[in-house]
Amino acid sequence: MAHPVLVEVTRGAMVESVHRGSIAIMDADGALRLALGDVDSPVYSRSSLKPMQAIPLVESGAADAFGLGDEEVALACASHSGEPMHTARVAAWLERLGLGESDLACGAHASRYEPVAEAMIRRGEKPTRIFNNCSGKHTGFLTVARHWDIATRGYEQVAHPVQQAVAAALRELTDAKELTYGIDGCAAPNFATTLTQFARAAARMAAPDKLAAGRAAASRRLIAAMIAYPELVSGTGRACAALMRAATGRAAVKAGAEGFYAGWIPNPGLGIAIKIDDGAGRASETAIAAVLDALGLLDDSEPARKVLRAPVLHTRGTAVGERRPSAALAALKLN
Amino acid sequence: MAHPVLVEVTRGAMVESVHRGSIAIMDADGALRLALGDVDSPVYSRSSLKPMQAIPLVESGAADAFGLGDEEVALACASHSGEPMHTARVAAWLERLGLGESDLACGAHASRYEPVAEAMIRRGEKPTRIFNNCSGKHTGFLTVARHWDIATRGYEQVAHPVQQAVAAALRELTDAKELTYGIDGCAAPNFATTLTQFARAAARMAAPDKLAAGRAAASRRLIAAMIAYPELVSGTGRACAALMRAATGRAAVKAGAEGFYAGWIPNPGLGIAIKIDDGAGRASETAIAAVLDALGLLDDSEPARKVLRAPVLHTRGTAVGERRPSAALAALKLN
Repeated sequence: MAHPVLVEVTRGAMVESVHRGSIAIMDADGALRLALGDVDSPVYSRSSLKPMQAIPLVESGAADAFGLGDEEVALACASHSGEPMHTARVAAWLERLGLGESDLACGAHASRYEPVAEAMIRRGEKPTRIFNNCSGKHTGFLTVARHWDIATRGYEQVAHPVQQAVAAALRELTDAKELTYGIDGCAAPNFATTLTQFARAAARMAAPDKLAAGRAAASRRLIAAMIAYPELVSGTGRACAALMRAATGRAAVKAGAEGFYAGWIPNPGLGIAIKIDDGAGRASETAIAAVLDALGLLDDSEPARKVLRAPVLHTRGTAVGERRPSAALAALKLN
Repeated sequence: MAHPVLVEVTRGAMVESVHRGSIAIMDADGALRLALGDVDSPVYSRSSLKPMQAIPLVESGAADAFGLGDEEVALACASHSGEPMHTARVAAWLERLGLGESDLACGAHASRYEPVAEAMIRRGEKPTRIFNNCSGKHTGFLTVARHWDIATRGYEQVAHPVQQAVAAALRELTDAKELTYGIDGCAAPNFATTLTQFARAAARMAAPDKLAAGRAAASRRLIAAMIAYPELVSGTGRACAALMRAATGRAAVKAGAEGFYAGWIPNPGLGIAIKIDDGAGRASETAIAAVLDALGLLDDSEPARKVLRAPVLHTRGTAVGERRPSAALAALKLN
């Protein structure tokens, strides 16, 4: 069965394109507070999974052992834009581990921040692995391997103890018996969950009182670090940063490729998981903004309002349409 | 009602994202040879409309009066990549009209061809209006206005005689009584049609024997020019070029923004119109390739086969999934 239309893109008087998708919101007591579409089939959460993938980094004591600050913890959860604030910190962190860029298993891609990408082109510089939006996540994996004094090589393989620690934490947080996986754009495994499972895990991280002490502390630190450093988790002008700033400390959110978006609301302890069927990031951004708005977590800041409802501009800058939540999404209410 | 899934994107063992949409194929006798999804609601065909928007250019005698070659006629139908083969020809054509780049109503955007875009960044050059993918279409509009010796200023306004000539030709080709419009990315009007109407118009252009002589000749020339110059209609490495080359002279195809794709098959006289609901170009490309394949119009050339079925690569280049036609799309058969 088709999932509901969550986001519409108009042009003139007509809706030109629509994005269907599904949303689950759970609370930390395990109640499903919202279910739209299909919340029970496995989907990849892609980079929205990073805060879960970073649990072993903090929980194992590796972050403390290497003296990481919340900036590095935020970067472990990041899909960063490859700005100097990101790459310089990742480089210094790798150095602290006694490692270098060639130890990263992720491939290179250009900085997502246009001024940096263009400056590199002007200087004739090629993007390197540290510019991969996942380089913080990968450096987090390497930190755990160094802390455990095991092979760093192959850390991105699903059988490596670091990935198995991620899988174990995720199974426990989701109540999933088994998790399938695919290979993410950065060559690391990405474990599939249902939206309900993901939202459950996020809710437990957001309000972790009932978790074991070490996992609770790790969850608190990860979410606090994301909220404290919205631009490290994403980049200048990015939706994640705009939405976290607009939530004024009350929510962490994280985009994933192919139309995933996730949220962690510490008070009152909610986890949010959104998947746009067709994988469109423009739609998942508007959908998470609409959910935050429905929860009263979006202030009137212009960048956040433009994520919620964005003008479609022609090439001379005139608005000729808009991207907006569907009526169903705009009206959503929690159970 | 939701439209059928036409294209799937997999990762590992799972389908990660799906694209729904609709397809109409008509023949020149007015028979609907294929209808998938909704073929009766108005949609914008965006740049797929360019061959229709170029009808007045040829039909009015303007193209001949200014001595245009088939290269310029192809450019009038193009969403070009802003490579020198495109921009130099448009610049020379504007000069032939006694006009310049400032007469174009489309806004500037960067070249879509990476080597050109990067070279311009290295030289510190800003993209200008001639780089707009629609600059050929706009120069075509200007040519008609010059030929008719009417004001060129405002040629992109819907009330201007050039746009009204486009609308009249489109009403006649589609049998539509009235056509609504929105403003396209290039600031010109884009007239909405149903998929059936669009496919009817394309079929009549593809096999124009029953059209009035002037329109028939214009249709033949436009389609022949597209087929003769696939890279002028699109650009180096683009899907339109790969598919037209793979059809070895038997089909013209044209992408439009927001998931539209169109085809003109002179023999046996078919018109194809595809709209992907969510606006994804990756899906409309695969969908038109699948339609061409079903019609026996796709040879085994690798670029075309990769439009039909494309590997999803991670950042180190390993295939971790694929984009492919859905079972329904792969099995399509004409009535």
